[in-house]
Amino acid sequence: MADFKVNILGCGSATPSLRHLPSCQVVDHRDKLMMIDCGEGAQLSMRRMKLKYSRLNNIFISHLHGDHCLGLPGLLSTMALHDIEGTVTVHTFAEGAELFQRILDFFCRERTYDLRFNIIKPEQGIIYEDKALTVETFPLYHRVPCTGFIFREKPKLRHINREMVDFYRVPVSQMLAIKEGADFVMPDGTVVANERLTTPAEPARSYAYCSDTAYNPRVAEAVRGVDTIYHEATYADDQADKAAQRGHSTAAEAARIALEAGARQLIIGHYSKSYNDESRHLAEARAIFPNTIAATEGMTVDLN
Amino acid sequence: MADFKVNILGCGSATPSLRHLPSCQVVDHRDKLMMIDCGEGAQLSMRRMKLKYSRLNNIFISHLHGDHCLGLPGLLSTMALHDIEGTVTVHTFAEGAELFQRILDFFCRERTYDLRFNIIKPEQGIIYEDKALTVETFPLYHRVPCTGFIFREKPKLRHINREMVDFYRVPVSQMLAIKEGADFVMPDGTVVANERLTTPAEPARSYAYCSDTAYNPRVAEAVRGVDTIYHEATYADDQADKAAQRGHSTAAEAARIALEAGARQLIIGHYSKSYNDESRHLAEARAIFPNTIAATEGMTVDLN
Repeated sequence: MADFKVNILGCGSATPSLRHLPSCQVVDHRDKLMMIDCGEGAQLSMRRMKLKYSRLNNIFISHLHGDHCLGLPGLLSTMALHDIEGTVTVHTFAEGAELFQRILDFFCRERTYDLRFNIIKPEQGIIYEDKALTVETFPLYHRVPCTGFIFREKPKLRHINREMVDFYRVPVSQMLAIKEGADFVMPDGTVVANERLTTPAEPARSYAYCSDTAYNPRVAEAVRGVDTIYHEATYADDQADKAAQRGHSTAAEAARIALEAGARQLIIGHYSKSYNDESRHLAEARAIFPNTIAATEGMTVDLN
Repeated sequence: MADFKVNILGCGSATPSLRHLPSCQVVDHRDKLMMIDCGEGAQLSMRRMKLKYSRLNNIFISHLHGDHCLGLPGLLSTMALHDIEGTVTVHTFAEGAELFQRILDFFCRERTYDLRFNIIKPEQGIIYEDKALTVETFPLYHRVPCTGFIFREKPKLRHINREMVDFYRVPVSQMLAIKEGADFVMPDGTVVANERLTTPAEPARSYAYCSDTAYNPRVAEAVRGVDTIYHEATYADDQADKAAQRGHSTAAEAARIALEAGARQLIIGHYSKSYNDESRHLAEARAIFPNTIAATEGMTVDLN
């Protein structure tokens, strides 16, 4: 199975319905889980999708509308009841950190893990980094301050050609440098080009989350070159006026962003409850950007 | 259909599972909806059970543990998005009112309805009254302050015997008094006993909600004479020690309360997630109080 994927836990808009839950996704990168937004019901959706609380250490909140974060108190309380240890970091705006700290201090005084808040800003850039991945913010254009997130794998290591490194007697101490692309210098000074010793690394992939936002070409600039883009598509063309009024996008606008950014695939979501299904959204997006997927609860999308 | 019933929206304990949601019930009295506790997911369960937000004007919170009230911000926000009008009153302890007021002022600034908090105390007595019903509090015995609620129908009107009131020429102006049980005095001074003019009213029914609480005979005293009792039964006998430690009850203890109180029927719920089903709870309760029902999500119990 892919070691970089995104699980869709909720892809409805503000009002939950019997068809869609409020916004929540879980990025799984080499078994580390990172949640993006945490609408009401997120804790239950994690159980439903068999995503373990113990692997979740980072939660990224795009903006402080209830449908993107009201699942946080319940999730964090339940994690304490499950004796989760280690550190759980919530990346959010200052006023969200203050409010959630207060709510958690009220409802979840006895925490088994260390709860931290990382205060972020949309224009900040990299807000999280581990050995294999970075997460960066970029501004979205909604009715309230809102940030997108780009999950970017770091360059991966090249694969050693075992026969060749044996032939040239490359010492173990040099192996990491070789995997990172260095040439090998033999004791007699002869240089062996890295390409003779290795085969190329898998490409580093990236995933951008863009919700909630009006259509804005600056979003396409911010996510240029990202492989997979999730972009909100609250409305179809028939309600383009509402999209503009409310700081949301149509499916066609989401597709234009993916096209302008040069993405490989587009996932749409955050559907208004005024639609009975997403066939219009999907048709209108695919007319502009064919490789479009309509998000649905329980879906896992391979990001490799 | 019955004009007094209770809908079970959630009957699990602190940790939601794929089998049970956190605590939430909706009492329906003559089409007025009154919610008791509001665990995460309550708003969605209302939709699932086709209970209209527009009919919900009172929410009663038993205590300030997250599994009994964390659905409140989402429910109240969604009600504003649905343009609900009128007044919505949340009956809760002072510190809950303060916190929820702050959360709602943050996430749901533009309310279409008037949100009020009624500060209650467990030992208070009647906290709500309308034409046909009262709601009163009584103390429960949990780890934090906790209140039970008794929903009590007011005495109902007797039924007019049309033939008899025509025969005695009872004027319309006297009819309400007759329904309330008055005798009729004829113009010549003859007294016609009420029993000749009417047939008996339906009995006034009552419903008590007891969660969360350790077993305590004072609970039985408080709910003596109530027709239907909901009493928490977090554990079966095999975990009686945990029940005592954590301020909860076993199913057998719930049944003892119903027996001591002289109830007509008992509903048990608030099951620990450590059980795969409620067969033990039900068997142990029925051994003491045969007319026991095991609550489950989506169930409606007739209170008439």
